[in-house]
Amino acid sequence: MSKHTFTRRHKIHFSECDPAGIVFYPQYFILFNDLTESWIDSLLPEGYQGLILGRRIGMPTVRLDASFTAISRFGDDVDLELDVDHVGNRSMSLELRCVGHDGVLRMAAKQTIVTTSLDTHQAVPIPEDLKAAIERR
Amino acid sequence: MSKHTFTRRHKIHFSECDPAGIVFYPQYFILFNDLTESWIDSLLPEGYQGLILGRRIGMPTVRLDASFTAISRFGDDVDLELDVDHVGNRSMSLELRCVGHDGVLRMAAKQTIVTTSLDTHQAVPIPEDLKAAIERR
Amino acid sequence: MSKHTFTRRHKIHFSECDPAGIVFYPQYFILFNDLTESWIDSLLPEGYQGLILGRRIGMPTVRLDASFTAISRFGDDVDLELDVDHVGNRSMSLELRCVGHDGVLRMAAKQTIVTTSLDTHQAVPIPEDLKAAIERR
Amino acid sequence: MSKHTFTRRHKIHFSECDPAGIVFYPQYFILFNDLTESWIDSLLPEGYQGLILGRRIGMPTVRLDASFTAISRFGDDVDLELDVDHVGNRSMSLELRCVGHDGVLRMAAKQTIVTTSLDTHQAVPIPEDLKAAIERR
Repeated sequence: MSKHTFTRRHKIHFSECDPAGIVFYPQYFILFNDLTESWIDSLLPEGYQGLILGRRIGMPTVRLDASFTAISRFGDDVDLELDVDHVGNRSMSLELRCVGHDGVLRMAAKQTIVTTSLDTHQAVPIPEDLKAAIERR
Repeated sequence: MSKHTFTRRHKIHFSECDPAGIVFYPQYFILFNDLTESWIDSLLPEGYQGLILGRRIGMPTVRLDASFTAISRFGDDVDLELDVDHVGNRSMSLELRCVGHDGVLRMAAKQTIVTTSLDTHQAVPIPEDLKAAIERR
Repeated sequence: MSKHTFTRRHKIHFSECDPAGIVFYPQYFILFNDLTESWIDSLLPEGYQGLILGRRIGMPTVRLDASFTAISRFGDDVDLELDVDHVGNRSMSLELRCVGHDGVLRMAAKQTIVTTSLDTHQAVPIPEDLKAAIERR
Repeated sequence: MSKHTFTRRHKIHFSECDPAGIVFYPQYFILFNDLTESWIDSLLPEGYQGLILGRRIGMPTVRLDASFTAISRFGDDVDLELDVDHVGNRSMSLELRCVGHDGVLRMAAKQTIVTTSLDTHQAVPIPEDLKAAIERR
């Protein structure tokens, strides 16, 4: 975790767990999607919804690699962390982690996101103001 | 909204919306489940997880009535509200609302919950300390 | 169940259940949304996606009343059933049920759906061909 | 796709798509979890629920690598495919794909699953009958 790490506290909900009593793993990706949304909200005055609904720019995932090293149980307090690994012209890669308040890394993912036109679903350049805000953060 | 209303702010996430760009309605019930969990957390020192995992007491829904009066869009700021309508011996009814920060009621639900043994799935009395905490709130 | 009942078999998935080992109740509404979609697919040659994406007509829920009478466990075989209760000019009400292959009714819901323009989110008449197909079914 | 490939047809539901009108990517992993469940059902007479609920053996994911090469839209007909890459003593790796009926690969994942005791959450050997059924398939 660096000084640039974007972090949100989260308590694992009942609704996120499976009959084994632990986080159903796709829920981590929903949590990370919400985290990325909050991160964009912190970078752009118009927020993530301005990007999607206003400028019609999507941020689909093209690559995802994840390791699950410890379980998270219903009721656990965790930190959800986001670091920027690399920003290119039309894509960026993020490092995402779920770390328990007990200090144990639960899982980590590396995700590559592309900026696309929601009209054509083709890649478009990352908007200048978003790129500048990421580099300035 | 009374002085007893349990409220949580929420920003509608991308992940909660459908191709029509509005909240996919079952997501409201997931949000309300998380809200009820936070409410129980505020009432019992051991929290909702203590009730479920420790005492093996579940809180399944037996009745639900909901009206959807206005749409919520991705990015909207809303309040999620919970009021207790009635507490019986083995069940309670809750009033749940999603209200936009524009003051517009988006939807409201009345939900009846039963306390059950997670081993037999039969109704059991609401634990005394939980009942007392609800009445004292 | 009448001769008009639209039915789909379903096996309760692990992913639909909660730490209590039973269906997480909002999942029933996701299952019913998928059922309604398959029902519209059976009525219109262009399917539900033609209605939504082609004609830009949405079918949001405005009213929902549900009773949960028995639990469904992970692995249970059930029938998901849909009956039309009433068709109006701009809305329709559906009766939805989840019935175990053991004959036990798990839950039932009555749902009122409105046809809307996805551009204005205002109610519009039910398309003539859809209304005719419902009445002819 | 080999002669051993386990395949299920699927039509992309409205409920699986996001405000961009395409599959919300964590939904692929829910679909694959359901697919793996159906695959285990085809291998063991007692099914996936027998493994989880009866023998108390879980199958958590420890590693996941996915590439998303083309979008899937609401209403698309796809095949969900599962191949076994490797079976070890306490883990197995699966290759999972979503392929459109237009022949276009939408996304592919490689997933490593470990068999664990649901009581201790520690790794345990893959049950002999499951291992034999996988090798015989």
